[in-house]
Amino acid sequence: MADADAAVPPVVVPSSAPPPAPPGGAPPKVTHHGRVAAPVASSNEDTEELPEFEPFGAPGPRGFPSLAEYLDISKVDMMKNRAEINHQQHHTDRFNTDFLIVRRGQEFQVKITFNRPYDADKDKFAVEFGIGPSPQFSKRTYMPVFPTPERQSPWAGRVVVAAGPEVTMGITPTADAIVGRYRLYVAVVTPYGIRRTCTDVSRDLYILYNPWVKEDVVFLEDEEERDECVLNESGVIYHGTWDDIAERNWNFGQFDFGVLDACLYVMDRAGMPIVNRGDPVKMARIASAMLNSRNDDGVLVGSWSGDYSYGVAPTSWTGSTDILLSYYRTRKPVGYAQCWVYAAVFNSFLRCLGIPARVVTNFYSAHDNDGNLKTDIILDENGRIDRKNTRDSIWNYHCWNECFMARADLPTGFGGWQAVDATPQETSDGMFRCGPASVRAIKHGELCFPFDAAFVFAEVNSDVVFHSRKRDGTMEVVKVKKDHVGRLILTKATGSYDSRDITELYKFPEGSVEERTVLEKGEVYGCARDQSTLPEADVELRLPALEVAVGDDFELCLEAVSRSGESRTVDAYITGSVVYYTGVTSADFLFKTPTLELEANQSVKELWQVPARSYMKKLVEQANLHFIATGKVKETGQIITAMKVVALHMPKLSIKVSGLNKVNELMVATVDFTNPFSLVLEHVYVRVEGAGVLSPVFKYYGLIPGGSRMTWTEEFTPRRAGPTRLIATLDCAALRQVSGQLELDVLP
Amino acid sequence: MADADAAVPPVVVPSSAPPPAPPGGAPPKVTHHGRVAAPVASSNEDTEELPEFEPFGAPGPRGFPSLAEYLDISKVDMMKNRAEINHQQHHTDRFNTDFLIVRRGQEFQVKITFNRPYDADKDKFAVEFGIGPSPQFSKRTYMPVFPTPERQSPWAGRVVVAAGPEVTMGITPTADAIVGRYRLYVAVVTPYGIRRTCTDVSRDLYILYNPWVKEDVVFLEDEEERDECVLNESGVIYHGTWDDIAERNWNFGQFDFGVLDACLYVMDRAGMPIVNRGDPVKMARIASAMLNSRNDDGVLVGSWSGDYSYGVAPTSWTGSTDILLSYYRTRKPVGYAQCWVYAAVFNSFLRCLGIPARVVTNFYSAHDNDGNLKTDIILDENGRIDRKNTRDSIWNYHCWNECFMARADLPTGFGGWQAVDATPQETSDGMFRCGPASVRAIKHGELCFPFDAAFVFAEVNSDVVFHSRKRDGTMEVVKVKKDHVGRLILTKATGSYDSRDITELYKFPEGSVEERTVLEKGEVYGCARDQSTLPEADVELRLPALEVAVGDDFELCLEAVSRSGESRTVDAYITGSVVYYTGVTSADFLFKTPTLELEANQSVKELWQVPARSYMKKLVEQANLHFIATGKVKETGQIITAMKVVALHMPKLSIKVSGLNKVNELMVATVDFTNPFSLVLEHVYVRVEGAGVLSPVFKYYGLIPGGSRMTWTEEFTPRRAGPTRLIATLDCAALRQVSGQLELDVLP
Repeated sequence: MADADAAVPPVVVPSSAPPPAPPGGAPPKVTHHGRVAAPVASSNEDTEELPEFEPFGAPGPRGFPSLAEYLDISKVDMMKNRAEINHQQHHTDRFNTDFLIVRRGQEFQVKITFNRPYDADKDKFAVEFGIGPSPQFSKRTYMPVFPTPERQSPWAGRVVVAAGPEVTMGITPTADAIVGRYRLYVAVVTPYGIRRTCTDVSRDLYILYNPWVKEDVVFLEDEEERDECVLNESGVIYHGTWDDIAERNWNFGQFDFGVLDACLYVMDRAGMPIVNRGDPVKMARIASAMLNSRNDDGVLVGSWSGDYSYGVAPTSWTGSTDILLSYYRTRKPVGYAQCWVYAAVFNSFLRCLGIPARVVTNFYSAHDNDGNLKTDIILDENGRIDRKNTRDSIWNYHCWNECFMARADLPTGFGGWQAVDATPQETSDGMFRCGPASVRAIKHGELCFPFDAAFVFAEVNSDVVFHSRKRDGTMEVVKVKKDHVGRLILTKATGSYDSRDITELYKFPEGSVEERTVLEKGEVYGCARDQSTLPEADVELRLPALEVAVGDDFELCLEAVSRSGESRTVDAYITGSVVYYTGVTSADFLFKTPTLELEANQSVKELWQVPARSYMKKLVEQANLHFIATGKVKETGQIITAMKVVALHMPKLSIKVSGLNKVNELMVATVDFTNPFSLVLEHVYVRVEGAGVLSPVFKYYGLIPGGSRMTWTEEFTPRRAGPTRLIATLDCAALRQVSGQLELDVLP
Repeated sequence: MADADAAVPPVVVPSSAPPPAPPGGAPPKVTHHGRVAAPVASSNEDTEELPEFEPFGAPGPRGFPSLAEYLDISKVDMMKNRAEINHQQHHTDRFNTDFLIVRRGQEFQVKITFNRPYDADKDKFAVEFGIGPSPQFSKRTYMPVFPTPERQSPWAGRVVVAAGPEVTMGITPTADAIVGRYRLYVAVVTPYGIRRTCTDVSRDLYILYNPWVKEDVVFLEDEEERDECVLNESGVIYHGTWDDIAERNWNFGQFDFGVLDACLYVMDRAGMPIVNRGDPVKMARIASAMLNSRNDDGVLVGSWSGDYSYGVAPTSWTGSTDILLSYYRTRKPVGYAQCWVYAAVFNSFLRCLGIPARVVTNFYSAHDNDGNLKTDIILDENGRIDRKNTRDSIWNYHCWNECFMARADLPTGFGGWQAVDATPQETSDGMFRCGPASVRAIKHGELCFPFDAAFVFAEVNSDVVFHSRKRDGTMEVVKVKKDHVGRLILTKATGSYDSRDITELYKFPEGSVEERTVLEKGEVYGCARDQSTLPEADVELRLPALEVAVGDDFELCLEAVSRSGESRTVDAYITGSVVYYTGVTSADFLFKTPTLELEANQSVKELWQVPARSYMKKLVEQANLHFIATGKVKETGQIITAMKVVALHMPKLSIKVSGLNKVNELMVATVDFTNPFSLVLEHVYVRVEGAGVLSPVFKYYGLIPGGSRMTWTEEFTPRRAGPTRLIATLDCAALRQVSGQLELDVLP
């Protein structure tokens, strides 16, 4: 040892100076080194190959002996023809694929041909399945299946038929097996080691969720609902307003070529561990984050800005296929989405993997409010809207998804439909995922369970609170509208193209005892409401429903109804503005200040002619007009209000087809549109597609002059029989969400 | 209208070609345009200024009349001197700050001087508070406080003393007020408008959580616990092994200059809406995500790689101040952290804002396993560890935090201590946040409540499952160790530097009826365990505890104890390896295959001398040695196992001080270290700091030759009285976590 007192001359560095950095280059990438023994298996694309021979010991002095005398595998038939038993029985025959696709918890068959007749007493073999980069039996990512009843692994195996060298094996994966793409091997045990088929990608197979078997957590008993929510590729998504509903057709395309691979890639991109991929709760939650590009470079870029020049306008899409395949091919987020695009692509994802799913639309949705139960509208002292201070908005409608599954992670009673939402929440704490939240829990106000039930609860149950802002900046609540938000919740009916009102799945009837109890329970869990108790006004303002086509003049009506025994005078303000579907105001185009004089119990109407030119130049996006009427009753000082959104009707595209309506026969679709306006439409995109018959295709028109007509004919060849829909859209900055559709029943 | 049949010549673009992109440049930034009416207020740094005059109407033809005759404000005294009533009564006198810092739900005072005597009957004024970019009364981000009992806003106001022109106002923010930095104004109402003090940053004040008042959700009744978990700046974090515990001293520095601003900036950086900043559940959840840099450019970059050349080694830090201030100053993540650094900085954050918090250490923590309840160890057919197939690891210890709060979002009974964890989970589904999870819910197996209770449950309750891997790749469970994981959970005791065993807060006693019930309940919520029922072996392997200083030779002992009435033979394997504290193996250094012969009910020991040279060159990081012994009992075929981690003891730094032990008197600290090895230590960093007395400072030594001594003297001047600790570390690649500390009680 050196002399302990020989002090080392210290190199003094003052505290504020950075430590001496090593020369050049960026900081080292974070590795798993020292942290985990091996990187976690989270990619279904990287499947490890198993060796063709695995010796039981070290080779002898002359190497391994010849295996010629032992059983060998000549051929493996995956029985993946669409018409064969596997795809038929597993409800996977609609997939456009070169591979076997089956569902878990249900037997499928593969046919193995050996080099000599199979002898059950002597020959030992196993069918082996591996998934991901490091298949392991203890993680259920490697699974051998044995033909003999004496020896069974968790996946059941049996010999269905053995005839000479040909053995048909029946294989039943567990009902909680990992969902994804597996590699298949056949292994034969020899005294010297395991002899195995070489890796052959054509023997890969996909195992999906199985709503048809009771043991699977996604089991859905209702057959019609199951067919709709797993197998139907054509959807209808509702928009417009609750009293003037509009429809958007959508091709989910979950069985299109490449879509299943794209969906698995979404999970790979999220870095989801392979071992978790049998759990639909975890998968739905991760997908709700990955379907939007916020935080994680997910599938869809949201934009509400009106400038979609670097991508496709949200209103222009006709289906999910293009979006998912583009993400899979380019590995880059796809632009652009608004709520229904997120919901539609999420729906494709869920149905593709076998999780029953549907798109729902909530009319008047309290969005972007971080789960508060109130939306504030600020009035000035006279009752007129104070735009500067009103910052909340209510979406005219909002779309999300429901998926069907048991919830083992929750107490019993909360399985069934689960709300999930992939639209990122702008104002929320980095919450770019939402759900799965039990719809039953939302209805019953049980908001303490994961995930995000309180958030969805607020979307359907918020109050609209009108505040009067005083001179000193304080405010007084003058009106609480409790029945505005969550006015109607719709989804497509099963087995038809009608809508189905599912409001009662989310809420007890307005004004019922149960409803009050639920709202009180919600408050216990922190969903506080405004507690003002305001005497009910004896005069009511009404804005009757309006159906207006874009470009038309129309008549606006404000009605005041008095239930008072005395006469009443109402000083009213009515503001008409063009709004985004998010409720955000773009521009005002109408302002009136009528004074309405009412006798006892009288009703009075005031009418205004609204010319098209007053609103046409100001229109944005989905062409919504928003009217807010507020009034002050002179005699009582009470504030009364009415609100109405008018979604202008768009001109239609027409689609016709000609030709033999049969599989593999050439047909022609004709898309037809006449510009009904005097203005020129510029930079117009027309899109058309049809599930199973016509892949997405589009055309670009530099301009369509006012009054002129465009006709586009496109040849196509149906790939499969059965009912389907052709869906077309026309989209340009001046005119959005013009669409048309045509039902088609292709003969075999 | 033009002729409808005049077809427009379409510009045909094939489907595969991209749509014509506009020229040049990157895609437009996503804006809030069309989506929300105004960007959400989520920055406490951007506080909007209120106008000095707000007229009630339009100015007259000659402008506004003179306000000279009305009340005006001459001076506002924030009473922010440390010795004054506000900081004393609000337990904020330790903050090193130029501003007033108070706690919500409790009265504080400001003194206003008017230009003439105040007349309560005639003069109308209000003290106004604003926070964030768009203060609004309806969002509680703007709050006026009135002096008269007749008119009160949610924040109570009263005149404490009025003497001539001087008025002392008492102000009580609600106990759920937003936490952050507010701007203060005094406003006087004149007939023409509101006259207001000009914006003066020196009148800004901070409102914090208040564990001292019952109405605050962070109320903590136990006074000693409250003092420890909010006010104590010195902490002890436990590491080592459960039977040979080591301590790490830490300066949380929550009252240091700038730290409070840094903590608020963390919330700004997360984009947390101002309106949510009164909710400690949401704040703790967001902080658990923001304290690590994964996903969101948060505070700390994790690294377990051993290469810390671009930052500071995790073992080198002495406190949180440097880290938080560096993040605040550079706005870039700070390198590097491992679990205790995340936990320590999170603790500073929580204590700084007034949420009671402590750091806990769990010995043998099942980390990185995505909430599964088993850790798999794979043995070959002979009982020897199969390193290639063993991919799970158990952390020797893991640190997280507990914070104390009511949980309004959960059913009653789950308030109190909540587990939160900022260490990112490598193998989890993008889960770079964890908690708050009710510790009571974890103990009782109520895993269905947010957030992440099942994950923490697994960290303390997992089983270690030994599998025997057969020739054909299948595995058989041969041993389940149920008492290994979650062996001991420690935190610092309140009011002393002792440790406190809090295992019973997380778990019922091993083997109790309650424990079994809880584990069964955990399974109901999806935390499945291995169900193998293996007969208990009648021979047991033991590895007795070892205390070894780094660089020493030592004796390893393997003991076999037989409870059988017959004789037994055990073929044993014992592997010694150097491991990271994460349980990941770096290199093996010992391998023995003893055969132990036991008579009936006999116990046999086998001893080996382990020379220092066998492990010294292979040491990594925290110098942990891991021994796994497995054996096969010949007579019964049973597999028996034993595991032991030995954390080598490090040499110590010595700290001494000289000088008058008084506030504002110069003192000298001497840090002393002798290199006990023959090897040269290179690139050595020595750090020292002390809460309230010495800001973090470090020195760099290019090399310290073997056997030589380094002595560093540093002058310092205590800023405040009371007990504190000086903490020093010495760190270099070859020798980590050398530390020393000295207690100091500074006289006033």
